[in-house]
Amino acid sequence: METPAAPLELDPRQRRAREAFENLRDRICAAFEAIEAEAGGAARFEFIPWEREDAGGEAGGGGVRGVMKGAVFEKVGVNVSTVGGVFSPEFAATIHGAESDPSFFATGISLVAHMANPHVPAVHMNLRFLVTTRCWFGGGADLNPPIPYAEDTRDFHAALEAACDTHGPGDYARFKAWADDYFWIPHREVRRGVGGIFFDHLEIEDDAGFVAHLAFVEAVGEAFLAAFPTIVRRRMREPFGAAERAAQLEWRGRYAEFNLVYDRGTLFGLKTGGNIDAILMSLPPVATWG
Amino acid sequence: METPAAPLELDPRQRRAREAFENLRDRICAAFEAIEAEAGGAARFEFIPWEREDAGGEAGGGGVRGVMKGAVFEKVGVNVSTVGGVFSPEFAATIHGAESDPSFFATGISLVAHMANPHVPAVHMNLRFLVTTRCWFGGGADLNPPIPYAEDTRDFHAALEAACDTHGPGDYARFKAWADDYFWIPHREVRRGVGGIFFDHLEIEDDAGFVAHLAFVEAVGEAFLAAFPTIVRRRMREPFGAAERAAQLEWRGRYAEFNLVYDRGTLFGLKTGGNIDAILMSLPPVATWG
Repeated sequence: METPAAPLELDPRQRRAREAFENLRDRICAAFEAIEAEAGGAARFEFIPWEREDAGGEAGGGGVRGVMKGAVFEKVGVNVSTVGGVFSPEFAATIHGAESDPSFFATGISLVAHMANPHVPAVHMNLRFLVTTRCWFGGGADLNPPIPYAEDTRDFHAALEAACDTHGPGDYARFKAWADDYFWIPHREVRRGVGGIFFDHLEIEDDAGFVAHLAFVEAVGEAFLAAFPTIVRRRMREPFGAAERAAQLEWRGRYAEFNLVYDRGTLFGLKTGGNIDAILMSLPPVATWG
Repeated sequence: METPAAPLELDPRQRRAREAFENLRDRICAAFEAIEAEAGGAARFEFIPWEREDAGGEAGGGGVRGVMKGAVFEKVGVNVSTVGGVFSPEFAATIHGAESDPSFFATGISLVAHMANPHVPAVHMNLRFLVTTRCWFGGGADLNPPIPYAEDTRDFHAALEAACDTHGPGDYARFKAWADDYFWIPHREVRRGVGGIFFDHLEIEDDAGFVAHLAFVEAVGEAFLAAFPTIVRRRMREPFGAAERAAQLEWRGRYAEFNLVYDRGTLFGLKTGGNIDAILMSLPPVATWG
């Protein structure tokens, strides 16, 4: 599905990055719908285009928010957004390469899945291409099991490690440590999950750099697509009771706290006139605080 | 119930303010337990003392967190905390009177009630006494109905207005406007409820000022105690169905967003080594994001 028309001129790199994210989104959604079908459900993604509001003179863009509520995927959101314009002065001061010139372009895919069965891990994946006076890729993926299984953690990390090892810009040890640092909830003194990778400001200087870095982030997306459905199928039929469901909902409260208090992607969306429903689609369908 | 012993020396004003807040807390808890009993429940407040952690050399204090989970009050938390010490340099720069000297003392009562019946409004009330190089009272109360009733809004505001009108430091029009401004969710472009009053930096210069301001904040507490139980009794037996419960839980998602993204009291607690369970007791027992 195409991003809706909006007054935003894309150069070839920007168009190429956006297409890569849209292509990945389509394949992930098909894979997740196939899992729902295997479980006997008929849930499908619903896609809702949105345009950027309060965009100002030079700004524009928008995106497509995809949501599926199924028997296995209690709520999964996949958003591809492509926006451009001018940061507010105070926000520009906090963004790489925007200190002197607040113009920006950003395209990215963001995915969060909250699962019905507490034995199946929740998951987050995000890939993005940013242009200010600098030009870089960022992204990451992390696994968030209410009930952790060493086998799932191992497989998820192994897929990401392989993607890093086969592409020049990848550095698994560094990106894993970055995820451990980023997905930390200071006021709880716990990690929000069992980690994964996180990376940002992977700068490109020329077309060759763009191609190499785009290949790397595409490989991260492919690693996610290879690893996560396998983990879901492994766990989605495990029986669970009220105590495990209650623990899952309480655990989701921690997840909501992280996203609302600390997550930079959430902040970025709120500060750049993003679509509220798309920004906050990461929030769990239901959560508890005891 | 007394605040637990902690290495914090209180001067007479600080002790007097703390005692006022503890006294108010005891009377509110008794009133809420009486409502539970009327509804045929046996729920009582559980009180959990806590001491301030990571307090550093000169710091100390703590508080008592009270929680009741009942048939009418799905979850109500009342915290009285009394803490002192030294702000971190970056946080001190944001606090009235702490720019040059980061020493502080704070005592306060904070209450949030989330109700079982969607027809009964949730509510928040907070009163506090702060000492830096300045010395002031702050506080407020606001009504948060998932399903608003004009009669409830009117009675709640009328009680607060009367408290303001009979005490010199009170200024209902200003404090009402301040609440409308404060309890605003920018990214949703909605208020979190139907308002009330909010005030801060009501500075005192001498003992007479302290007495007058303490009398005012005590009157706000009394107004809350007079108004809210009446509203609860008016609504708590109204029948409701699944659609109203679902709307209530979605509405609570907005409430959680406000408290985690914007609320200064939450930030103050997280930045001053407060008790996490006490700080986040304002979060709803269960919330949904559609």
